[in-house]
Amino acid sequence: MFKKILVANRGEIAVRIVRACSEMGIKSVAIYADADRHALHVKKADEAYNIGADPVAGYLNAHNIVNIAVAAGCDALHPGYGFLSENPELAEVCARRGIKFIGPEADVIRQMGDKIQARNAMINAGIPCVPGSDGNLESLEAAVVLAKKIGYPVMLKATNGGGGRGIRRCDSEKELLSNYDRVISEASKAFGKPEVFLEKCVVHPRHIEVQVLADAHGNVIHLFERDCSIQRRNQKLIEIAPSPQLTQAQRDYIGSLGVKAAKAVGYENAGTVEFLLDSDNNFYFMEMNTRLQVEHTVTETITGVDIVQQQIRVAAGLPLQYKQSEIAFRGFAMEYRINAEDPQKDFLPSFGKITRYYAPGGPGVRMDAAIYSGYVIPPYYDSMCAKLTVWALDWEGVIERGRRALNDMVVYGVKTTIPYYQQIMLHPDFRAANFNTSFVEQHPELTEYDVGLPKELMAAAIAAAIAAHEGI
Amino acid sequence: MFKKILVANRGEIAVRIVRACSEMGIKSVAIYADADRHALHVKKADEAYNIGADPVAGYLNAHNIVNIAVAAGCDALHPGYGFLSENPELAEVCARRGIKFIGPEADVIRQMGDKIQARNAMINAGIPCVPGSDGNLESLEAAVVLAKKIGYPVMLKATNGGGGRGIRRCDSEKELLSNYDRVISEASKAFGKPEVFLEKCVVHPRHIEVQVLADAHGNVIHLFERDCSIQRRNQKLIEIAPSPQLTQAQRDYIGSLGVKAAKAVGYENAGTVEFLLDSDNNFYFMEMNTRLQVEHTVTETITGVDIVQQQIRVAAGLPLQYKQSEIAFRGFAMEYRINAEDPQKDFLPSFGKITRYYAPGGPGVRMDAAIYSGYVIPPYYDSMCAKLTVWALDWEGVIERGRRALNDMVVYGVKTTIPYYQQIMLHPDFRAANFNTSFVEQHPELTEYDVGLPKELMAAAIAAAIAAHEGI
Repeated sequence: MFKKILVANRGEIAVRIVRACSEMGIKSVAIYADADRHALHVKKADEAYNIGADPVAGYLNAHNIVNIAVAAGCDALHPGYGFLSENPELAEVCARRGIKFIGPEADVIRQMGDKIQARNAMINAGIPCVPGSDGNLESLEAAVVLAKKIGYPVMLKATNGGGGRGIRRCDSEKELLSNYDRVISEASKAFGKPEVFLEKCVVHPRHIEVQVLADAHGNVIHLFERDCSIQRRNQKLIEIAPSPQLTQAQRDYIGSLGVKAAKAVGYENAGTVEFLLDSDNNFYFMEMNTRLQVEHTVTETITGVDIVQQQIRVAAGLPLQYKQSEIAFRGFAMEYRINAEDPQKDFLPSFGKITRYYAPGGPGVRMDAAIYSGYVIPPYYDSMCAKLTVWALDWEGVIERGRRALNDMVVYGVKTTIPYYQQIMLHPDFRAANFNTSFVEQHPELTEYDVGLPKELMAAAIAAAIAAHEGI
Repeated sequence: MFKKILVANRGEIAVRIVRACSEMGIKSVAIYADADRHALHVKKADEAYNIGADPVAGYLNAHNIVNIAVAAGCDALHPGYGFLSENPELAEVCARRGIKFIGPEADVIRQMGDKIQARNAMINAGIPCVPGSDGNLESLEAAVVLAKKIGYPVMLKATNGGGGRGIRRCDSEKELLSNYDRVISEASKAFGKPEVFLEKCVVHPRHIEVQVLADAHGNVIHLFERDCSIQRRNQKLIEIAPSPQLTQAQRDYIGSLGVKAAKAVGYENAGTVEFLLDSDNNFYFMEMNTRLQVEHTVTETITGVDIVQQQIRVAAGLPLQYKQSEIAFRGFAMEYRINAEDPQKDFLPSFGKITRYYAPGGPGVRMDAAIYSGYVIPPYYDSMCAKLTVWALDWEGVIERGRRALNDMVVYGVKTTIPYYQQIMLHPDFRAANFNTSFVEQHPELTEYDVGLPKELMAAAIAAAIAAHEGI
């Protein structure tokens, strides 16, 4: 087993990885930009190294990070999510310097990172994909013929695109004709490559993803699925395991697809195979994420399997600790991404000092936080500062527990998504387990809540008003 | 279902009950002495009423508490543990005033609170009890004859005693002869009643208790057992579910005994049947606690059943939500009672201001805390200020998770039992699941740890020393 692991990340996921190391008796090494000097992951790790004044550049400098790992005597590196986690170069630098990268091989990261390559690999493996062009479009004429064949609406996508740019929906041939040159132009400008491809547009899909685990000995298992349909502009907000929208037959099917996909590309370590589920109950492969996901906590909560520990074990060459037949799930888990944002101002980031923070607690509550009372959330990073995961034996129970725990969690000093999630918990469609990726967009009224004063401040304000009135 | 529940308690258990109410959509009403003005249970409840300047008297005044419940429009009252929770008078006052007491009938509380009555009820029901006198001893001669028959060591106990007083162990006839009059004298002085009885002394027993749930419709189930052998002077410190020291056959047996005991006395609501397990694997009934236990969290964690919600449901007349066949457990849970005490000073209470508190988090960690940064622990109450409950799929995993979570939990300002528990986690006998109620007493060396400075303060101290040395 490894002796010391460098955690090439920050925030709550760095804390999460440090915790796994601690439970396994492995020393952990943190890295931090100046802006993260007081971050929790620095306090929690056994050692911590500064990576410079630029808040972001240091976290993206694979060579420097691996240098630190070597100098600190690490034998492995965990990339977390975001930053360099899906950058094959980091995996390659690690391999060259004798540091075990806790993730799949660089080639697999590269293959799954390329939309066309990933799609082709899945088609070859018999995994259902959204109907579309087999590779890049050769001409507008070819696009028109194909779109007629698979039916509108279709999506035109930049092959090398990402982050929601270089994508246009076309509801008719007329729109396709007018958008074709535009997307090529956007793709050229934004990504330096003009290639585009075409896919059927799956309308109002549900987002269902399968967690897989694979070791170096050919064992591949799945840990059931997550429902991540509650999204805003392709950013997940709430994730649920298992999906309350699937039948057991669908669950078995999608789990087996996940394992098949991982096997098809010789996958090793933890990964996630993402699918769209349309209103006719067709599953379509969307992409495979070759890393730990933010929302792995819900899967850990229902299965009891520590996914980060399994990642470390398989990276060290050990076989998976469990056979598929030993994996069971119980109840429902729901994760809320607590973002420092103001939902009432179009989710504007709300950075600054957390003047007070009370962690939620009690039954069925797991907290993965990067915040504490007095912590200043720096403005340079993702606004997600904590994850609240709740669990209960049944669907109604997990909603009520979530509502209670959101209320239990007190963050003063910055605005958060907490009150917005409380609104979602009350919505009849959500409660009836009837929602898709358009839910957030279709319910703008859910941001129309009355924040009011926190109870304590309210009491103080009333007391002050009375005192003023009475001339005390 | 109830509309509003008065929580007749304070501290973490009051917060726990408020959380259950919140999840069930029931309003909660707190009570607080002046000393508890800033307590967390007051902040969490929907309403809160002051019960006076005396820190304790108000929590023990059944009439006044029920008056508040009536005046606040409550329809039920939850007594928690401690204070009036096993006082039949509170149950009676509630009944008279039309407030549903969330617990068993007053008669059952009274019967189980009387050592001789409880023992006789269990013997009649065929529950194994420690061999001893059938009721009070009539004479010293009778005591000598009985002791010879059941074998030494024996215990002489005041029938109306409690709290560890009026109890003497006798290892020989000589000791019995010399102790007999002494115990009668102690019993008369301490409890105003001279009656004593005699029991076989179970040497180095393990403490195993069964959680039962019973409704008003005759349904009684158990939620498996807890191992509470890690105690100091009869105060539990660490509790585990299920017991790592039982075979499945023993588990099935003890569970069925718990159900049988509850049925024998017509029990309703949640209760705990406590047993001693001797080194020859004999179980003996010890007592039944007719209330929620501190350590109910470990049972909730392995079974997923919310015991407080079930208490409220059955008090409202609903049937139990689960059949015995639907109750399953998974993995191991361990609860640490975080006491504001200094284990290195004979567990001297360490009250005062919590200057900083970081809650532990991450996978498998549940926190039930009555503390927060800036909270001042008042000196008038029990020193337990928080409960940390951890869970993992296997025994080794739960120990390592516990070790990590204890390390994760930071409390500055007062001394706690946290570092002491860390020592226990490292002890080979504990790790081998080989311990009994004498473990703490037999390992005084476990308090010989080096606290040192917290990592952050250490770094600051080193920096200050360097600065001073360099004349900065």
